[in-house]
Amino acid sequence: MIVNPNSSLSLTEGLVASARQVAQRADIVAGRATRAVPVVETNVDEVWGSVSVIEQVAQGELEGIDGYVIACFGDTGLAAARELANGPVVGMTEAALLTATLLAHRFVIVTLPPRTMAQSDRVVWSLGLAHRCTVRAVDVGVAELVGGAAHLFDLFADAAQRGIDEEAAEAVILGCAGLSELAPRLQAQLGVPVIDGVTAAVGLIEGLVEQGLSTSRAGTYARAVEPSADLRQ
Amino acid sequence: MIVNPNSSLSLTEGLVASARQVAQRADIVAGRATRAVPVVETNVDEVWGSVSVIEQVAQGELEGIDGYVIACFGDTGLAAARELANGPVVGMTEAALLTATLLAHRFVIVTLPPRTMAQSDRVVWSLGLAHRCTVRAVDVGVAELVGGAAHLFDLFADAAQRGIDEEAAEAVILGCAGLSELAPRLQAQLGVPVIDGVTAAVGLIEGLVEQGLSTSRAGTYARAVEPSADLRQ
Amino acid sequence: MIVNPNSSLSLTEGLVASARQVAQRADIVAGRATRAVPVVETNVDEVWGSVSVIEQVAQGELEGIDGYVIACFGDTGLAAARELANGPVVGMTEAALLTATLLAHRFVIVTLPPRTMAQSDRVVWSLGLAHRCTVRAVDVGVAELVGGAAHLFDLFADAAQRGIDEEAAEAVILGCAGLSELAPRLQAQLGVPVIDGVTAAVGLIEGLVEQGLSTSRAGTYARAVEPSADLRQ
Amino acid sequence: MIVNPNSSLSLTEGLVASARQVAQRADIVAGRATRAVPVVETNVDEVWGSVSVIEQVAQGELEGIDGYVIACFGDTGLAAARELANGPVVGMTEAALLTATLLAHRFVIVTLPPRTMAQSDRVVWSLGLAHRCTVRAVDVGVAELVGGAAHLFDLFADAAQRGIDEEAAEAVILGCAGLSELAPRLQAQLGVPVIDGVTAAVGLIEGLVEQGLSTSRAGTYARAVEPSADLRQ
Amino acid sequence: MIVNPNSSLSLTEGLVASARQVAQRADIVAGRATRAVPVVETNVDEVWGSVSVIEQVAQGELEGIDGYVIACFGDTGLAAARELANGPVVGMTEAALLTATLLAHRFVIVTLPPRTMAQSDRVVWSLGLAHRCTVRAVDVGVAELVGGAAHLFDLFADAAQRGIDEEAAEAVILGCAGLSELAPRLQAQLGVPVIDGVTAAVGLIEGLVEQGLSTSRAGTYARAVEPSADLRQ
Amino acid sequence: MIVNPNSSLSLTEGLVASARQVAQRADIVAGRATRAVPVVETNVDEVWGSVSVIEQVAQGELEGIDGYVIACFGDTGLAAARELANGPVVGMTEAALLTATLLAHRFVIVTLPPRTMAQSDRVVWSLGLAHRCTVRAVDVGVAELVGGAAHLFDLFADAAQRGIDEEAAEAVILGCAGLSELAPRLQAQLGVPVIDGVTAAVGLIEGLVEQGLSTSRAGTYARAVEPSADLRQ
Repeated sequence: MIVNPNSSLSLTEGLVASARQVAQRADIVAGRATRAVPVVETNVDEVWGSVSVIEQVAQGELEGIDGYVIACFGDTGLAAARELANGPVVGMTEAALLTATLLAHRFVIVTLPPRTMAQSDRVVWSLGLAHRCTVRAVDVGVAELVGGAAHLFDLFADAAQRGIDEEAAEAVILGCAGLSELAPRLQAQLGVPVIDGVTAAVGLIEGLVEQGLSTSRAGTYARAVEPSADLRQ
Repeated sequence: MIVNPNSSLSLTEGLVASARQVAQRADIVAGRATRAVPVVETNVDEVWGSVSVIEQVAQGELEGIDGYVIACFGDTGLAAARELANGPVVGMTEAALLTATLLAHRFVIVTLPPRTMAQSDRVVWSLGLAHRCTVRAVDVGVAELVGGAAHLFDLFADAAQRGIDEEAAEAVILGCAGLSELAPRLQAQLGVPVIDGVTAAVGLIEGLVEQGLSTSRAGTYARAVEPSADLRQ
Repeated sequence: MIVNPNSSLSLTEGLVASARQVAQRADIVAGRATRAVPVVETNVDEVWGSVSVIEQVAQGELEGIDGYVIACFGDTGLAAARELANGPVVGMTEAALLTATLLAHRFVIVTLPPRTMAQSDRVVWSLGLAHRCTVRAVDVGVAELVGGAAHLFDLFADAAQRGIDEEAAEAVILGCAGLSELAPRLQAQLGVPVIDGVTAAVGLIEGLVEQGLSTSRAGTYARAVEPSADLRQ
Repeated sequence: MIVNPNSSLSLTEGLVASARQVAQRADIVAGRATRAVPVVETNVDEVWGSVSVIEQVAQGELEGIDGYVIACFGDTGLAAARELANGPVVGMTEAALLTATLLAHRFVIVTLPPRTMAQSDRVVWSLGLAHRCTVRAVDVGVAELVGGAAHLFDLFADAAQRGIDEEAAEAVILGCAGLSELAPRLQAQLGVPVIDGVTAAVGLIEGLVEQGLSTSRAGTYARAVEPSADLRQ
Repeated sequence: MIVNPNSSLSLTEGLVASARQVAQRADIVAGRATRAVPVVETNVDEVWGSVSVIEQVAQGELEGIDGYVIACFGDTGLAAARELANGPVVGMTEAALLTATLLAHRFVIVTLPPRTMAQSDRVVWSLGLAHRCTVRAVDVGVAELVGGAAHLFDLFADAAQRGIDEEAAEAVILGCAGLSELAPRLQAQLGVPVIDGVTAAVGLIEGLVEQGLSTSRAGTYARAVEPSADLRQ
Repeated sequence: MIVNPNSSLSLTEGLVASARQVAQRADIVAGRATRAVPVVETNVDEVWGSVSVIEQVAQGELEGIDGYVIACFGDTGLAAARELANGPVVGMTEAALLTATLLAHRFVIVTLPPRTMAQSDRVVWSLGLAHRCTVRAVDVGVAELVGGAAHLFDLFADAAQRGIDEEAAEAVILGCAGLSELAPRLQAQLGVPVIDGVTAAVGLIEGLVEQGLSTSRAGTYARAVEPSADLRQ
């Protein structure tokens, strides 16, 4: 299941379509939320996005989903999803970063807008990759991507090229699910691997399922004794 | 305002009372939430706790609150609260850690239960203090603290003493708002400073307000262009 | 291709068999070397093991191999293999570590013998995972694994359990290709995910190939202008 | 007590005056030294400055001082002062850094002259904040500040702006006690919090005193068995 | 013994000559290899270079050599050499880095070509010096140095000056054995210490021998039970 | 010149004697101070010890000393000495740590008493070696070493052995100048290199002098425009 915590159906459909292209055996479905945020950009958005993730995963568990991809840069709601789901859960940000370590010595995240750089840092620091990964942002709101990212190609190409030239980046990570359509053209122009976290996460989930591996229940992601189904009102 | 994301009124009242003891000029009030979780222990609890924090801070802004203390170990909802509030916001975990750096070379967090150690790590790593702070947990659920912590004194004293003996800790941080009542007796027995994050945060907030300092609006905590008041349903 | 730099054909066959179990679309073959070391344990072994990796990958390129797994803990010869191969190359150590980050907050490598701990550290540090991963070793030479690891089960189970109890490890990484047969029984006894790097690497390689991603040719892994086919004598 | 290890009485008076503006209950006094350095800039200056700090704190203890602020960037003599004083001691550099973590994701120190950057690094590294804080210096000697800093406003504003633009700093730390007069105007022009360490330290000391917390006597800052009152000659 | 893993006799002779200038008591000899690579630049070169190092050290042991210097930036084959040799072994890269810490707060490596920056990073990270050392590369192949480096003076001087100006470097490390001839002129022009790793390593080896210290045989560099004399074919 | 900031003439004589044993060309002399502390143990001791170092180096400059060794664990007064001296200055702690990196993958400092562990940490962190070095302390005051360390052999041997067994240390650093007499017997018993910082520093200084290298005058250790000869009174 592709879990998109924002309410853009067209974006979700695009993500599912590209996930299906790389999936080997998995049947890809979209999460369905009764609640979602228009975009996940602010810190408050992240909280409401996490609520949407919880709802989608809870619904997925009823449907017997084998694994989940969090399709939002910053991996909103990832820890809660891991706790709730029987199968493995992979965030698109961590997927992109882990993939980059396999392809390049140094790499750069190009995200948007600048206010979300701390969300990238959070995942980079958690994985301990600050010595190999830098973060750059273009000054465009996430809302501008809702109808497609093609008009922003030059902006992202320029930021990525600066990462290559000034920080010796050898691969580029796209810092938003809505940017995935730019990957092939960017890769052609830049001459280095351009990584889309959603498709990277699909590959990781399929590998985990094949190996019979899922989230550890010792400690951090143990099952709740009594799940807090919702807020007590 | 003391923002307690769990629904225990007696705990909130205790926190307000001890905050009033250390406040110098501030008038301390309790946040009031229509929604709260019984305890904040799991990763899902943290999401719902963050929703409660958002609600309490939004209400506080209507009442002209000057500053906020997040009274939950792990600093649940801190980033969103900073974004929403005009005045400064301080989490009890970061407050305790920063205070410990002023009193001791090395220190130890004693928290509960073991599954929450990752929440402590998150704050320790964000502040870069892993070289000076270790984390220990006693195997007791947060729910056992709701009626008071006195019966757990020996358990916490023993864990803290091991941190002192084995890791050269020179100060102890209490890893839960519900442990503050143990501080004086623990400090007497252990012979090192025992830090309660809620009272530490009150001091920090008062200092920030006196200096006229509040959250930076450049970047991470910038105001939302269009706040997501609630989930679109 | 499973690239095993040691000369144990039975081990290679076992690795290929278990790789085939998790492979989704890939046709798994074993690398064939005219030169190999009996086991890779010392620092000198690692150099000769790297020579064997180079030879196997060079042969694989002639056969049109799509991707390579280095089946030796410490990821012997990985950088050279990346440089030589058209397709992606994944080491079993990095594969296990990246997989562990998706399943657990903290984890432990159990390797052998103690003299190889620096080889584990090398990969852990390169990935920046020292804050989440500890390394333990049992005092047994790699040669003892050549005929099977079953007789060492208790030794490894005990070391893993100590990592869980003393370092809050939530998952276990097997620190040698020859230990993979122990994984199911260890996982059953320990109650946490037990990760075998070779099967983890197969999943990663398949995902990379599906995404059309391979090693960056900008910088570190650029093609050699004039490859040094062998030593000038 | 404001402990200024340099001999500029006008600077000390200015520091006491601004400390009084933010103090809530504390009665602020200036340390009086028979020995002081004109400015603290070189490594040798730091040693003599530490001697001055020791003398001022020893005198303060005779007068029953409750807490001390080291008013010199680099926190000259801080460890010795902690060891000597009954009450807590806070350095202006650590105070500014801890305060910045509460207001901003990333921040920049603007200090002077370049030769003192290692003194800033020393405090930044000790607190583990290198992942969030950069250090910049303007090429002006400390002596130029003795008569006031107003003529250097543009120089500091420019350096701070570059930290904001190039390193995504969201707050600015003034890297010298003599710069505090620039804070309001800099904050107005830059649009981000500008932190003066001396006033920040006053708030921290007041909070510690209210909480009844002081330096740990276990380990690093234990009382000397036989204090070395002065050098044996 | 100066162990140069590449086949340039003129370079080896130059290295021996400059080593003799700084040696105090040691009799400096050149390693003789039947096998060597023309230059060590790629990751494959490093493997073959390591084979050459092993062969030279094995020969040196027969001749009773007291200590070895690996004269190749990146310290190719260092771990294997330590394992084989009775006496101490020092790599030119680690020697240069350790020397720089004694002379300067921050420093810069200027190496070539950009593809080898990961080799520098490997040594910098292993020593934990990333907080004090940056790495820069000029876009010239190692082969261009075979006949001498004088024609590249301006290129290296410019890169080093940028490290001094932009990263506050206070010393410069030459990132290739073939650059040593540039050291005096660079030091005169730049006005900061310019460190050649080969001569630095000679001093370190002499000091170790005088102290009677050699590689620890506990753990990482323990003697092999049964040395792998060569690949089984 | 061996600069011993404490007033024990017998200790200084012993240090000079052992330095002469490892010196190759250098003529070793003892620093003479009119002022010194009985032992350097507390933070206040370190300040007075630094004053003694400054005085001894200033005197040494009049005598044309080529290089200086700070013979006090913690490297008291090192930065000021570097600034004052024309020739290079090496601290015994940094010398021991750098030497250990050349001999072992991991190592342990055994110092005394526990209150000085922060002084070891300071040097370990400044060099970035916390990933390879642990610090242990025996509970004995420095004053007990003044008449010789032989009676403490078992205590130190036991602490070192625990570092070897529990932390995989492969070499041992003696954490006090007064412990050097124990080195040969400890090395024989423990079976790993035991490093004395003073003799290690002598080797480093000789190497620097032979290479014509001294402290960088760009930035941190630049000459003072107007040296603060003493405190203004």
